Amino acid sequence: MAQKPSIPKGTRDFSPAEVAKRNYIFDTIKSEFKKFGFQPIETPSFENSDTLMGKYGDEGDRLIFKILNSGDFLRKADAKAYEEKDSLKLTSSISEKALRYDLTVPFARYVVQHQNEIDFPFKRYQIQPVWRADRPQKGRFREFYQCDADVVGSDSLWQEVEFVQLYDAVFNTLKLEGVTIKINNRKVLSGFAEVIGEKDKLIDFTVALDKLDKIGEDGVKKEMQEKGISESAIEKIQPIFGLSGSFSEKIEGIKSILETSETGKAGIEELEFIQNAIAEMPLKTAKLDLDVTLARGLNYYTGAILEVSAPENVKMGSIGGGGRYDDLTGIFGLKDMSGVGISFGLDRIYLVLEELGLFPDTVTENTKVLFINFGEKEALYAMKAVRQLRDSEVVAELYPDSAKMNKQMKYANRREIPFVVLAGEAEMDEAKYTLKNMKSGEQQKLSLEELTSAIR
Amino acid sequence: MAQKPSIPKGTRDFSPAEVAKRNYIFDTIKSEFKKFGFQPIETPSFENSDTLMGKYGDEGDRLIFKILNSGDFLRKADAKAYEEKDSLKLTSSISEKALRYDLTVPFARYVVQHQNEIDFPFKRYQIQPVWRADRPQKGRFREFYQCDADVVGSDSLWQEVEFVQLYDAVFNTLKLEGVTIKINNRKVLSGFAEVIGEKDKLIDFTVALDKLDKIGEDGVKKEMQEKGISESAIEKIQPIFGLSGSFSEKIEGIKSILETSETGKAGIEELEFIQNAIAEMPLKTAKLDLDVTLARGLNYYTGAILEVSAPENVKMGSIGGGGRYDDLTGIFGLKDMSGVGISFGLDRIYLVLEELGLFPDTVTENTKVLFINFGEKEALYAMKAVRQLRDSEVVAELYPDSAKMNKQMKYANRREIPFVVLAGEAEMDEAKYTLKNMKSGEQQKLSLEELTSAIR
Repeated sequence: MAQKPSIPKGTRDFSPAEVAKRNYIFDTIKSEFKKFGFQPIETPSFENSDTLMGKYGDEGDRLIFKILNSGDFLRKADAKAYEEKDSLKLTSSISEKALRYDLTVPFARYVVQHQNEIDFPFKRYQIQPVWRADRPQKGRFREFYQCDADVVGSDSLWQEVEFVQLYDAVFNTLKLEGVTIKINNRKVLSGFAEVIGEKDKLIDFTVALDKLDKIGEDGVKKEMQEKGISESAIEKIQPIFGLSGSFSEKIEGIKSILETSETGKAGIEELEFIQNAIAEMPLKTAKLDLDVTLARGLNYYTGAILEVSAPENVKMGSIGGGGRYDDLTGIFGLKDMSGVGISFGLDRIYLVLEELGLFPDTVTENTKVLFINFGEKEALYAMKAVRQLRDSEVVAELYPDSAKMNKQMKYANRREIPFVVLAGEAEMDEAKYTLKNMKSGEQQKLSLEELTSAIR
Repeated sequence: MAQKPSIPKGTRDFSPAEVAKRNYIFDTIKSEFKKFGFQPIETPSFENSDTLMGKYGDEGDRLIFKILNSGDFLRKADAKAYEEKDSLKLTSSISEKALRYDLTVPFARYVVQHQNEIDFPFKRYQIQPVWRADRPQKGRFREFYQCDADVVGSDSLWQEVEFVQLYDAVFNTLKLEGVTIKINNRKVLSGFAEVIGEKDKLIDFTVALDKLDKIGEDGVKKEMQEKGISESAIEKIQPIFGLSGSFSEKIEGIKSILETSETGKAGIEELEFIQNAIAEMPLKTAKLDLDVTLARGLNYYTGAILEVSAPENVKMGSIGGGGRYDDLTGIFGLKDMSGVGISFGLDRIYLVLEELGLFPDTVTENTKVLFINFGEKEALYAMKAVRQLRDSEVVAELYPDSAKMNKQMKYANRREIPFVVLAGEAEMDEAKYTLKNMKSGEQQKLSLEELTSAIR
C-alpha cells in the first residue's frame, strides 16, 4: 500500500516560506496593477482544444498538455489513426480539452466571448498558472505562474507610457534597483529591412540582430549573410552596431538610417513620444533604454516591444516583457482590436530578490507567540488569552498537547516563534502570564492587556 | 479562421466584479487562517496518477481528469488493452499524470515527502482549485476552489475546539449571522451500531441515519430494515429520533443509549470536552449544535465530524465541513499521524453572501477618478496628476484617446467611476483641475493637493 511519494518532473511543492515570498511579489504586482486601473479576470485552467491549438505554432501545439476524455474515450477514437497507431492524429478524437498554455490566448477568447459586457478600452490583469510540456531544466518548469496586464481596444501610445511607469512602480516597490526597461518598435525593425531592400527577410534579419548580445557584431553579420542578406545591405545598417549614449542620441543614430522608410519613421515617432513623456515624468528607480536589437516574439508584435533586464550585477535573463499587437482578438473573429500588454516573470523575480536579499523579514513572519500547554485547566486559561490576542490581530497559538516543557520550547525555537507564554497555577491565581522573549531570554509577568501590547 | 469562442462545460470565466467578490471571501478566510497560526502551502495542479488513483473509490477514480502523455504516447500503450480497445485498461499506459481531485491527498503526500523539513504538529492551509469530471449542474462545477485548513501530528482535542472557533471567526468577519456548526463523532455512531448489535452494518446504519433530514424518521427506519437491521435493534436507538433542546440535553439523551459501549462513551467525552471549552469561550456569531445523524465521509473520519449549515432563511446545503482522521498519511507509508481539518465551500458561501446582500460595496470599487483626454498637451498635464494620485494610493486613470467628450463621459458612467477630472488649457494656465462628482454633478476647480484630498 505504501508508495514512495513524489511529484511529476517540472512541478514544485511550495513550503510556507516559499508561498509567503511568492505572495509578497504577487501582492506587490497586484497592488500596482490595481492602482493603474487594471481589473482582474480569471479563466478556466483548461480550454477547449480548438481554442488553444494552432495559436502557438507547431512547437507550441506539441507543448500543450492535453486532457484525456472521460469514460470510454476510445469509443470515439478516429478509426484510421487508431489502426495506424498515429498518436498525433489520434489526439483530437480522444482529447477535447487542454491546459492553458499562456494567458494571452484565453484573454483574447474572453474578450470576444464577453464583448457585450465589456466597456472598452478594457484594462485587465490576470495572475494564474500556465502549463507547458517543455523539457524541465534549471529555472524552467512545467507549471508556472504568469502575471499579465493588458489593455485592449485603444491604440493610444499613453498605454505604452503607462506600462513603462507600471514596470517602474512595481520594481520600485520591490526595492529592486538597477532595472533597465528596454524598448524597441516593430516598425523600426521593419524599416531596417525595408531600407536594405530585404523586406521579405525581416524575420531572419531580426532573429540574427536579436543575438547581438550573445554572438557579437561579427556573429550577427555572419548569420545574416548565411540567410542570404548581401554584404552591401548589411553595410547600410552598419551604424546600428555602434549605437551608444543616451536614448535621444541613439534615436538620432537610427534616424539617418531610416530616412527613406515611412514605416521606420513612424516607429521612431512612437519611440520619441514615449521617451518624451517619460522625460517629463521621470521614473523612480528603473531606466528606460532604447535597444534596436530587441525583437522577442516578433511575429505578433506590431508596435512597441518591451523587455526588462535584471540589475547588471545579477546573472539573469529578462524578468519581464511585452508589447503591442494590433490584432489581438482577430483569431476569434473580433477585428480591429489593438492590444498592448506586459508580463512579469515571477520565478525569475523571486530568484533576483532572493539573491539580493530583498525579501523583507516580515514576509515570512508567522506565529508571534506560543502558549506552553501545562494541562487541561491551564490550557483553557491559555486559550482564553490566545483568543483575545487573535482578536487584537496577534497570531497566537497554544501548543496542542501538554508535552514535556523541553519539547514545547524546542518547537517554538525551530519555528522561530519570538515569544513564549508560560502560565501555570501561580500565574492563574494572579490572573497573569509569564512572557518569555525567545531571543533575549528575558521574562516578565504581565496582565493580558500588558501582554498584548508587549507582543504587538 | 474565426471560431465562435466558448469554454468547456462545468468551467467558468470570472469577471472583474466576480473576482473581487471571490477574493473578498478568500482574503477573509486566509486572514483568519493566519491568525490561528496556519501556514500556507501549495502543491502542483497535477500529481503522478499513482498518487491519486485508488484514494477516492472507483467512482472517484472515474472522476479524476487524466492528462495524456506528451509526444508519441501510443508507443508505450499497453498492447493487450489497445487490441481490445479497453479504455479503462489502456489509460494508465498512455497517461501518467492527473489533475488534483481534492487538497487532502496532495497534503498527505506533501507531509510524507517533506516530513524531515516539517515541525509537527503542522498547521497548514491551502487554497487552490481542484478538478472533477462530474456531470455539471447548478452549483456543481468541474473546476472549483477548495479552502482547507488541517493540523497533522497531534490528537489533542484543542484542535477541534480551534476549528469550531475558526469557523465562527470567518463567518463573523463575513457578517454572516445564523450559521450553525453541527458536530458529531464517529465513535458515537460506532457506539450506536455496537449497542444494537449491528457493528458490521455501521456504514448502512449511518448512511440511513444521515438521511433523517430528507426522508424523515419513518424513511430512515424503513431503509435500515431493508439493510437487514431488525426492528428490535432499531427500537433500542429510538431516543435518537427524538433528541431536542440544548447541546447538553442532547448529550444526556444519548448517554443512556450508549451506557454499555466504551467506544460510544469515549465519543461522548470528546463531544463534551469541545462543548465545555466553547461554553467557556462563547462563539461570536455561530451556534454549535450536536447532530448525531451527521456522518459525511464516514469512511475516513475516526473522531469529530463537523458540518456548517447556512442560515435557515437561505436554501443552501452545507457551506463547510471537516473532521478527524487518525491515519491521514498511512497511504503514503507514514503511520500514526492523526489529522483534523475543515474546509470552506467557496462557491456556496459566495451564493449565500450574494443572496443576503452581504458583500460590502467597497469590494467591487475600482477606479476612483478618470481624467478626460483633451489632446496630447492636456493629456501630459493630466498624466502628471494621475501619477501623483497613484502615489497617494488613489486609483486614477487617463482616458487613453482624445475621443469625443460624450464618449469619455459615457465610459466613466458605465464603469461607475465616481469622479471625473476636466483639465483643458484654462485649467493648465492656472495649474488647476476641474473635479466633477459624477453622482451629484457638482464641479469644483482645485489645486492638485486639494484634488487629492477631495477624492480620498
